[in-house]
Amino acid sequence: MAKPTRVALLDGGEMYTKEYLMYWNVPSEARATLPSYSVLIDHQDGLFLFDTGFDLQVYKESFGAQMASASQTPDQTLPAQLALLGLRPDEITHVINSHYHLDHCGGNKHCRNARTICHACELEAALKPLPFEALGYTDRSFLPKLAGEPTLDMYTPYFETLRGDQEIAAGVHLFETPGHTAGHYSLMVRLPGRRPMLFTADACYTRKGLDLMAMPSTHVDPIKGYQSMQRLKALAEEHEAELFFSHDSESYQHYLKAPAWYG
Amino acid sequence: MAKPTRVALLDGGEMYTKEYLMYWNVPSEARATLPSYSVLIDHQDGLFLFDTGFDLQVYKESFGAQMASASQTPDQTLPAQLALLGLRPDEITHVINSHYHLDHCGGNKHCRNARTICHACELEAALKPLPFEALGYTDRSFLPKLAGEPTLDMYTPYFETLRGDQEIAAGVHLFETPGHTAGHYSLMVRLPGRRPMLFTADACYTRKGLDLMAMPSTHVDPIKGYQSMQRLKALAEEHEAELFFSHDSESYQHYLKAPAWYG
Repeated sequence: MAKPTRVALLDGGEMYTKEYLMYWNVPSEARATLPSYSVLIDHQDGLFLFDTGFDLQVYKESFGAQMASASQTPDQTLPAQLALLGLRPDEITHVINSHYHLDHCGGNKHCRNARTICHACELEAALKPLPFEALGYTDRSFLPKLAGEPTLDMYTPYFETLRGDQEIAAGVHLFETPGHTAGHYSLMVRLPGRRPMLFTADACYTRKGLDLMAMPSTHVDPIKGYQSMQRLKALAEEHEAELFFSHDSESYQHYLKAPAWYG
Repeated sequence: MAKPTRVALLDGGEMYTKEYLMYWNVPSEARATLPSYSVLIDHQDGLFLFDTGFDLQVYKESFGAQMASASQTPDQTLPAQLALLGLRPDEITHVINSHYHLDHCGGNKHCRNARTICHACELEAALKPLPFEALGYTDRSFLPKLAGEPTLDMYTPYFETLRGDQEIAAGVHLFETPGHTAGHYSLMVRLPGRRPMLFTADACYTRKGLDLMAMPSTHVDPIKGYQSMQRLKALAEEHEAELFFSHDSESYQHYLKAPAWYG
């Protein structure tokens, strides 16, 4: 009998900004707190990590204080979070990045034995960002095999790009949700004995964003971004899935965090 | 000998908002003042009006106070501005709208004898705006002939849609500059004895925006928006044209306004 899948959320610290930088064209100057976390999937086919949070040093070097700041304790680094579960980064078999913004790939560098998976369009965007996208793509540490070798069509034992919706392991689904970035994936995981978990990643930061249909201010294609939010709603309904938002301080209080497991 | 072309700027009041709603992802909460004006071209082929400002009542009904407010004296309405030049709205032969946001088409309704010209993609967008665009397209008064008849492919004696760059009269050029909206045109007018005047319209609100390459926060395609700003720079250089920005309170102080003429 197959080993049952389980999921843990790895806390990765907080980021701080203003709401008008979270919700496009919403005129709110309220201060916003954005939690950051990674999703660990313990699956019969391996240990899959969906997103890896931010590297505090890179974060601080990238953003001016007026735009965003962040906090991350030593206990909120990826190695420390995995240790809560008795795991080491070199045991991770697959890293999937929803996209390559710096707060989603900062811990990739710790996972030296993992196959790294992303959308083909995302790798292209990250290697040659448009000027207005450059700030998001300042963490290049996910590219250790590629240092000095920007190329758009790569496939190594360690690096794999995908297109289209994909079931990368039994019950582990990637759904295309572009708009925030060119090649963005959301994740759905089927677990025994509970509703599927649907991780929006940055296609939608928060439940409030989905309610308002206000996409993140940072985006490359607002038409696709809007359609991706519609798609997430439809997917949640179709699969009776529970939505998990990427940067929702209110919802995040109620999520289980490692060392607890879902499933 | 051909009658020499001349140009007048018709003051249309001011709008007020925060800078973060003017410059995409620029974290500035400074209050911003946005002048609004129309461009009258007295040409041997007719009286051409490029944009027609906002209708104060429609503006107030469309925006919440937190997003934007506006002021417009009776002297800043389109009929009053034309009267400064001894003209009546029914003498306007052509109205060209850079795009159909409410602060660029509010005075169309006064020009009952004009042929109305816009980009074909813009008419399509205005008739069926995406939800996140709807706020900009709340002034429907430019469509008196079309009430209840939304159609995407029209050509009447009164309504004309164009595609591509166009020289609509000798020395009066429309250049495609999409991104802010789907079918946006900028205008260049050649005058005797001075540099061509290049009106960016909302492809770039201000000189600061062009310097920062920060496009308006309101946009439908940021990639095209960025390319359009690059295009405006290139056009200004190629034609040794003087740039006139749509909503630049600093530059606007130095523009000649009606009853004065350029040319």
